[in-house]
Amino acid sequence: MYRSHTCGELRSSHINQEVTLAGWVQKVRDKGFMIWVDVRDRYGITQLIFDEERTPADVFEKAKSLGREFVIQVKGDVIERESKNANIATGDIEILVKDLTILNGAKLPPFTIEDETDGGEDLRMKYRYLDIRRNPVKNSLLFRHSVAMQVRNYLSQEGFIEVETPYLIKSTPEGARDFVVPSRMNEGQFYALPQSPQTFKQLLMVGGMDKYFQIVKCFRDEDLRADRQPEFTQIDCELAFVEQEDILNIFEGLTRNLLKEIRGVEIEKFPRMTFADAMRKYGNDKPDIRFGMEFGELNEVAQHKDFKVFNDAELVVGIAVPGAASYTRKEIDKLIDWVKRPQVGALGMVYVKCNEDGSFKSSVDKFYDEADLAKWAEATGAKAGDLICILSGNTNKVRAQLSALRMEMATRLGLRKSDEFAPLWVVDFPLLEWDEETERYHAMHHPFTSPKPEDFDKLETAPGEVRANAYDLVLNGNEIGGGSIRIHDKELQSRMFSLLGFTPEEAEAQFGFLMNAFQYGAPPHGGLAFGFDRLVAILGGQETIRDFIAFPKNNSGRDVMIDAPANIDDEQLKELHIKLNL
Amino acid sequence: MYRSHTCGELRSSHINQEVTLAGWVQKVRDKGFMIWVDVRDRYGITQLIFDEERTPADVFEKAKSLGREFVIQVKGDVIERESKNANIATGDIEILVKDLTILNGAKLPPFTIEDETDGGEDLRMKYRYLDIRRNPVKNSLLFRHSVAMQVRNYLSQEGFIEVETPYLIKSTPEGARDFVVPSRMNEGQFYALPQSPQTFKQLLMVGGMDKYFQIVKCFRDEDLRADRQPEFTQIDCELAFVEQEDILNIFEGLTRNLLKEIRGVEIEKFPRMTFADAMRKYGNDKPDIRFGMEFGELNEVAQHKDFKVFNDAELVVGIAVPGAASYTRKEIDKLIDWVKRPQVGALGMVYVKCNEDGSFKSSVDKFYDEADLAKWAEATGAKAGDLICILSGNTNKVRAQLSALRMEMATRLGLRKSDEFAPLWVVDFPLLEWDEETERYHAMHHPFTSPKPEDFDKLETAPGEVRANAYDLVLNGNEIGGGSIRIHDKELQSRMFSLLGFTPEEAEAQFGFLMNAFQYGAPPHGGLAFGFDRLVAILGGQETIRDFIAFPKNNSGRDVMIDAPANIDDEQLKELHIKLNL
Repeated sequence: MYRSHTCGELRSSHINQEVTLAGWVQKVRDKGFMIWVDVRDRYGITQLIFDEERTPADVFEKAKSLGREFVIQVKGDVIERESKNANIATGDIEILVKDLTILNGAKLPPFTIEDETDGGEDLRMKYRYLDIRRNPVKNSLLFRHSVAMQVRNYLSQEGFIEVETPYLIKSTPEGARDFVVPSRMNEGQFYALPQSPQTFKQLLMVGGMDKYFQIVKCFRDEDLRADRQPEFTQIDCELAFVEQEDILNIFEGLTRNLLKEIRGVEIEKFPRMTFADAMRKYGNDKPDIRFGMEFGELNEVAQHKDFKVFNDAELVVGIAVPGAASYTRKEIDKLIDWVKRPQVGALGMVYVKCNEDGSFKSSVDKFYDEADLAKWAEATGAKAGDLICILSGNTNKVRAQLSALRMEMATRLGLRKSDEFAPLWVVDFPLLEWDEETERYHAMHHPFTSPKPEDFDKLETAPGEVRANAYDLVLNGNEIGGGSIRIHDKELQSRMFSLLGFTPEEAEAQFGFLMNAFQYGAPPHGGLAFGFDRLVAILGGQETIRDFIAFPKNNSGRDVMIDAPANIDDEQLKELHIKLNL
Repeated sequence: MYRSHTCGELRSSHINQEVTLAGWVQKVRDKGFMIWVDVRDRYGITQLIFDEERTPADVFEKAKSLGREFVIQVKGDVIERESKNANIATGDIEILVKDLTILNGAKLPPFTIEDETDGGEDLRMKYRYLDIRRNPVKNSLLFRHSVAMQVRNYLSQEGFIEVETPYLIKSTPEGARDFVVPSRMNEGQFYALPQSPQTFKQLLMVGGMDKYFQIVKCFRDEDLRADRQPEFTQIDCELAFVEQEDILNIFEGLTRNLLKEIRGVEIEKFPRMTFADAMRKYGNDKPDIRFGMEFGELNEVAQHKDFKVFNDAELVVGIAVPGAASYTRKEIDKLIDWVKRPQVGALGMVYVKCNEDGSFKSSVDKFYDEADLAKWAEATGAKAGDLICILSGNTNKVRAQLSALRMEMATRLGLRKSDEFAPLWVVDFPLLEWDEETERYHAMHHPFTSPKPEDFDKLETAPGEVRANAYDLVLNGNEIGGGSIRIHDKELQSRMFSLLGFTPEEAEAQFGFLMNAFQYGAPPHGGLAFGFDRLVAILGGQETIRDFIAFPKNNSGRDVMIDAPANIDDEQLKELHIKLNL
């Protein structure tokens, strides 16, 4: 036993007890005749005291050699602290040290192990094991664990069974790029790492498992944007004999439970919104509804004058930014520059200041009178003091641009509060989306998603109008989960593959096993998968997922700590029946 | 809602209720005027009754079309069953059906979906989704889930944190063959899939996580023997500030808890045995101690006569097989054939029958008298009625051979009872083992295992004698867990790599990140990993792990259900900067 107590455990009730602690040196204050050392472990910090008069001389001498992050073990007596520290749980006591063992020395760490560190992102990633010692990272990992436990216990109690599905599976052309694994025993062939356990969870439903879940790693070999990882974790769920309504209720229950148990937030009923409404009102299929600024479409009230820009536009749409009528000309110019950035891509922005006295001042006063602008204010819900920001152009583009502006303004106004939680179901997604590049339809969710039965007859005639039994769970403007009712009929699945441009032979080669399974008694089924990394980050009130992943990769997919990926031996290549092709 | 109740839920208290059930047709008995259908789901079986007089004609007609494994939904009234079936939980009632929907038809399954099936292993693997409908497989997966939940909840309560470590890591030459993953973004480089999260869990200890666990998939590209899978699951655990004793106590606690909660078996204290004793007494480092038949070494009492075979042998060793003195000459000959099979490899076997009258009859009566044989009986603990089986030769080989015979005889005698549990700690493993082929030492556990401090000085002078702080947890003759105290000192780790034949440059290239980490305040640490597949199988009283894995691979590493691995596109190969080399 290296310790009798942890560094976060001792209280005034322990005074006069002899204890043994072990941990890292957080701080040394050497006053010559007296040395104070803060010793730290996962559980907290305890102050040690070495006193020239009361500590054995050799121990006192050894204490003088201590440096930051040394690993030590001390024996001593718990005594009352003279100047108590209310900021830490052990602040009432300190340890008068009798014996000290240096378990391991430490070089000076490349950045400070403090809540606010001086280390940059790259350095902290290279020395991730030191970064993990810091409270923000350590607590994020502890938090992740507690969320995972809560999820597992909740789902188990609801009758779900966690089933492990395989990691070495088969590459499929649909979806994102696969990571593949050359097979040594099956020459010239490759496994693929799963992008999700989709087909396996469906087969478990065919197998009668009824309620399945799994917290599972998934893999996508995509170009990495900020905050996207090549390996990520899903809470993957599937149920048999369910309709969309059942699934929404069950996972609303899970999410409500997490919000309550983890964050103490009680939310009664999650609102629902169709995809079409989400796009119309927020320009986004994952709207952040913690705040308003709903879109007001202005075509009717803005396309009757000589302003060509609006008249030529497919859509004229605006939002009322609360309290921003006071923006100066310069501030507004900067805002216009912001929407014209390539990342947003607007060609310009029309604005209307809604003055406190009820009058309006706009950048298009030449074309519109006060009565026109009053109608715009009505359509956008603008009140006195608001700034109406209006974009126009192609419907899809302008919605995306205005959505970006809406989020930006909400951030500037502090409306995206990390301790406020606004979940939302987005339903009735289109089944397919047209891809200009390949000139064919792609599955919006995935090829196993069932069309709505009432839209079956449009599948071949008007595929773009077919709605899917698909749904997303949105939390604070992030898609935290998505799923669908699946196809469970071989014929319908074949029609779907054919719509997606598969020949019957290709469909058979790739998904024959699934369509075959559907012939042996497949029940109606559906499911949902949560992005666990993001869910945990949002529940933790954070924007980025990186602190919630113990060993994340950088934007080139590299682990800079272990320096992977790396070269492998020629011998290994040969055994795997592959050569480099550089 | 497809159902109001499950097929395992209804009791006589539900009589007269209208219910809706959904599930698979297990059996149809058509008596013309009356049709009985057993409908099955994960939760049980309920009997449906279609009565020509009481069931609507169209429903009755539809019922006539039902076949095995059809997926149906029925509405009806719960009524009392005339001939009750005590074998099933719902045996007191049946459903008089009013409405029937065929949710999906089913082709005749390729094997019967019964507890005892007519399907062979290959067929069942190809149609694993049908195999999973069978109780033995379904219950094994449910059992696995309950063990995993118990493990997670126990370890969480003990302060362990589950941390997910990465799957895309770096290939290392030590240990088994890695599965590798070509990197698209890092040309010519490869990730490796982890054989275990070994270095990451050690880095988590350096990072102060203190108590880590993870139920995690691991990968080894080895030639597959029966019951070994290329991907397998570990309960991986690591702790800081611990000695071997702490670790044994903690995981003895976990295992005791599992045995109690899962199997209702209470075991006080697990016995411990050194590796040397295990080899001497059982010829095996994972002895099954549910039964006796300890080895008796006979060199002293058998090497004083003219029997050259024994005199030339390094070791003469025997076991007393209870009650086998009654074996006929023919039975004994067959046993001798058995030990001479290539899988066992003995050159022959000497036997002594311990007759009920106290006399002996042996195959070497020419060389030894009754007094000699009495000494052999004493050394092997043989009693009247036992058969002493004796092998001789090279110590290591003969021990392995006699161990195989001991297990075989125990199986034949029914001594390996699946509901009896005998855990055992095996400790004090050698640090290194000599490999004849490569003519160098290999790490017996792995290169991060700490030698016992008292053996440090033998590291360079007598490496073969150095004992490790390593331990295995054995249950019923299976190693279910193994671990060690790790090296946490850079210098010692370097010495270790050098002993294993690494140049300093190679050690640095492969494990520089770990040795570097040791310089920044690494605490003493150690851990243990359980083979989860095997643990679950043994707790479930089974010999093979396959039913406890939802989608296992066959002995060629193939998933015959989805037909993986498979060929991939040239385009994919090109993107990954590799070519085939067939």
